[in-house]
Amino acid sequence: MAVFQRLIRFEDEDGQVQWGDFGSEEVGRDVEGKTAHILNGSVEDGFKKTDRQGKIKKLLSPLPHTPIVLCVGLNYKQHAEEGNLAVPTYPAIFMKPPTALSGPNTPISIHPDCQSQLDYEGELTIVIGKTGKNIQAAAYADHVLGYTVGNDVSARNFQLPASASGGQFGYAKSFDGFAPIGPCIASQEAIGGDPNKIRYWTKVNGEKRQETGTDDMIWTDPKGFVKDGDEVEIYVEGIGSLVNTIKFE
Amino acid sequence: MAVFQRLIRFEDEDGQVQWGDFGSEEVGRDVEGKTAHILNGSVEDGFKKTDRQGKIKKLLSPLPHTPIVLCVGLNYKQHAEEGNLAVPTYPAIFMKPPTALSGPNTPISIHPDCQSQLDYEGELTIVIGKTGKNIQAAAYADHVLGYTVGNDVSARNFQLPASASGGQFGYAKSFDGFAPIGPCIASQEAIGGDPNKIRYWTKVNGEKRQETGTDDMIWTDPKGFVKDGDEVEIYVEGIGSLVNTIKFE
Repeated sequence: MAVFQRLIRFEDEDGQVQWGDFGSEEVGRDVEGKTAHILNGSVEDGFKKTDRQGKIKKLLSPLPHTPIVLCVGLNYKQHAEEGNLAVPTYPAIFMKPPTALSGPNTPISIHPDCQSQLDYEGELTIVIGKTGKNIQAAAYADHVLGYTVGNDVSARNFQLPASASGGQFGYAKSFDGFAPIGPCIASQEAIGGDPNKIRYWTKVNGEKRQETGTDDMIWTDPKGFVKDGDEVEIYVEGIGSLVNTIKFE
Repeated sequence: MAVFQRLIRFEDEDGQVQWGDFGSEEVGRDVEGKTAHILNGSVEDGFKKTDRQGKIKKLLSPLPHTPIVLCVGLNYKQHAEEGNLAVPTYPAIFMKPPTALSGPNTPISIHPDCQSQLDYEGELTIVIGKTGKNIQAAAYADHVLGYTVGNDVSARNFQLPASASGGQFGYAKSFDGFAPIGPCIASQEAIGGDPNKIRYWTKVNGEKRQETGTDDMIWTDPKGFVKDGDEVEIYVEGIGSLVNTIKFE
């Protein structure tokens, strides 16, 4: 049993950064001003409950830093079929660097070279909390701290095979702030026990663009690219909403 | 003018880890037992000379850690032509994670799943010592700490388009220890002033397999893959030799 249901990191009314458990509710857009049960500890050393509560002044990224963001691409059958892409035998695996990490409600600042085909993608994100090596599949859950929402931001102009990527996905997705996560890290219990059966959706400026289940893609609108000032909201059942505004430099 | 000619990190006779300047000579295979001028400082904060000398008991990786290893693939015209690969319009850019970093004389431990098509590649490696963003091309040298030798170790069975990579290069090259660097970080002066005109070669078990100039590939033998116990030595003019032994788990 995890020490938390929904782990958050926040600035309290005294300006202190705190870890907290938001408890049994999803973390909604109205989280600021509500309270959380304060936790002591860290991702590396584990968390302990306290009997203190803290008022959430500003919600922060649920991870202060990460050594790596490992991504699995094209893993939805319908997504591949709709894009006229072969359903891959093996998933495409690529990385985002530590500097791509960002948090909820943080504007994503976009360099002029990245603005022409800027895209987003809602992702269920698994947070590994315990280091390991050659982990057996049956023991994977021991290493999972929990689940969060991710926005896989891409400057697609750097991802097209003929462009600067040379066919590699990572570069287009690796600019500063291109991996926002949040609003909380939910325990396996909090997401209903089975990460393979979760629904989620993405909205741009309040309009639903994509609705998805982790068992397959459910539907997707022709998306178009995002523009300066657009608000992207990604919701995952059991976790809550990750909201970021796009800000062209 | 850099504070060092050839920056090394080493364990001295008292078991202390020290930074040192090896001076005007390339760092050869016989470096252990020789002396270096001790430096104070760190990569992040810069280095200062001292008047102390230290005896090199064990040479360590010239970087204790790195946030990211950014790699540029297929950038040699002849290499591309010989491999029947199109000369790319833009380079392939991919990443290795922090856990891939390793040092000179450190055996590279190879998991059974990575042993069937294990490969190496000598690389001139640029060490970025100063953080920056949107750096102008004309100012790039302000951010370069120096140059070292890299071995781009790959488990090619994970890199073939039809295999587990999904066409992405990074995964095959990202296992623990697959990015050894060393033996030193040489200043721009120490490598002769122009990183675009350096020769280097690779030997396996003492036999030269590849000779290269940074202005293009000069020649390459049909390489074959490496086996348990093979010693890979990569030499770069002005820097020295990076030697690692392959050890199958």
